[in-house]
Amino acid sequence: MFIIGELINGMFKKVESAIEERDPSVIETLALDQVNAGAHALDVNVGPHSKDPVKDICWLIEAILKAAPGIALCLDSTRPAAIETGLKLIKGRSIINSTDASDEKLSVILPMAKRFKAGVIGLTMDRTGVPRDRNQRLELAAKLLSACAEHGIGTADLYIDPVILPVNVAQPQAAEVIETIRDLMVISDPPPQTIIGLSNVSQGTKSRNLINRTMLVMAASNGLSAAILNPLDRELMDALATAELLLNRNIYCDSYLARKG
Amino acid sequence: MFIIGELINGMFKKVESAIEERDPSVIETLALDQVNAGAHALDVNVGPHSKDPVKDICWLIEAILKAAPGIALCLDSTRPAAIETGLKLIKGRSIINSTDASDEKLSVILPMAKRFKAGVIGLTMDRTGVPRDRNQRLELAAKLLSACAEHGIGTADLYIDPVILPVNVAQPQAAEVIETIRDLMVISDPPPQTIIGLSNVSQGTKSRNLINRTMLVMAASNGLSAAILNPLDRELMDALATAELLLNRNIYCDSYLARKG
Repeated sequence: MFIIGELINGMFKKVESAIEERDPSVIETLALDQVNAGAHALDVNVGPHSKDPVKDICWLIEAILKAAPGIALCLDSTRPAAIETGLKLIKGRSIINSTDASDEKLSVILPMAKRFKAGVIGLTMDRTGVPRDRNQRLELAAKLLSACAEHGIGTADLYIDPVILPVNVAQPQAAEVIETIRDLMVISDPPPQTIIGLSNVSQGTKSRNLINRTMLVMAASNGLSAAILNPLDRELMDALATAELLLNRNIYCDSYLARKG
Repeated sequence: MFIIGELINGMFKKVESAIEERDPSVIETLALDQVNAGAHALDVNVGPHSKDPVKDICWLIEAILKAAPGIALCLDSTRPAAIETGLKLIKGRSIINSTDASDEKLSVILPMAKRFKAGVIGLTMDRTGVPRDRNQRLELAAKLLSACAEHGIGTADLYIDPVILPVNVAQPQAAEVIETIRDLMVISDPPPQTIIGLSNVSQGTKSRNLINRTMLVMAASNGLSAAILNPLDRELMDALATAELLLNRNIYCDSYLARKG
């Protein structure tokens, strides 16, 4: 599974302060720790209180790439200008996080993804909000797929996010998301990638880590190809490694949990 | 999910000694502890070294039912005579563990299940051994289903066991088992129950509990209806409770992990 580390996000106090004070050491440590824990890419989000998202995302990208040169980056911003400026800075792999399935957003984001050969995360939601069930999610996924095809973006570059909601406020949605992930494996040939923003499922609950890792294992066994998560949660990464073992994606050895970090 | 506690088994030294010495306190404690931890039924197995399986299984059943009157029992023996004698003793729900899909075994076990209105665990294997893949498992499952139908045993009483093997010696099999479980949800209408003997997947590995609970969560998210497992493994039961929550089978509350025990 393709793992995107979620920790470089201005919604976390420590990161917000580091951005404000232009203190790269916090960011460098978070970048290295996540990569050593198994992240294949890092999410980059300046947070909700940034006064200058374009400048802030550039500073974050430079700090990260100094610590982990060549690491893939996932640019997480609601501002197209911040994403575009970020894409210009990145030489390696980049992923745009995210577009929804509305025409307005697709017409801005997809040309940008094509121009910079970036991957793109497509949310199965539009201006009317988060879908109620798997059927509505599949309709929006089909729209994302055909919009990408029109812009010359292949399924390998489209990560469809069926949008997880917190289990304590929208309990039926987790099962709908799991079934959507399974359905997406056969929606096209080759199928698109699938991705979830894992931590959202446990927002506001008392057993966040347990809920996160249980959701991830269930999603993995139903075909999930990527996740945005906290790779420093060791039990989460152990559960994922075990799931991949049981799904025959890694070769068993007694020390399969051993780490480089 | 229907949970069958696995701990009253003569392959465990403590149970073997209790049987030999006719010491009911060990058995009573194991029965109560498993029920309090969430078991809906208890497996009863005199173990491989019993000199008189018929007498021993009767003694075990009486000891268990004294401690936990009315608990469902799963009679686990290769000897039809021990199973039949046990079935005569039990007033409540009983399940025969197990028959394979060979004509010889089915012709002995199914009439017994019908006569005593017992459930029956049907293994997707025959005299040629454990199947290589999901297709062979489904063929044998279809044979089990039709044999049960011929004997007037409904799908609610048939628990199909796709036979898990240890991941360290037969790694591709775990994924085959998971896909078989999913396929069995649509093999007939109504579908049969599905069951796994969970602990077998981790035999001989170094991370037994982690492998067990990861396998259980994956199987649950693919439709598993029952499992034989160790209910005293608290992390296992927590993982299962969380999976059932995310699958919308229990209603979320902050204290969903709280126990009666």
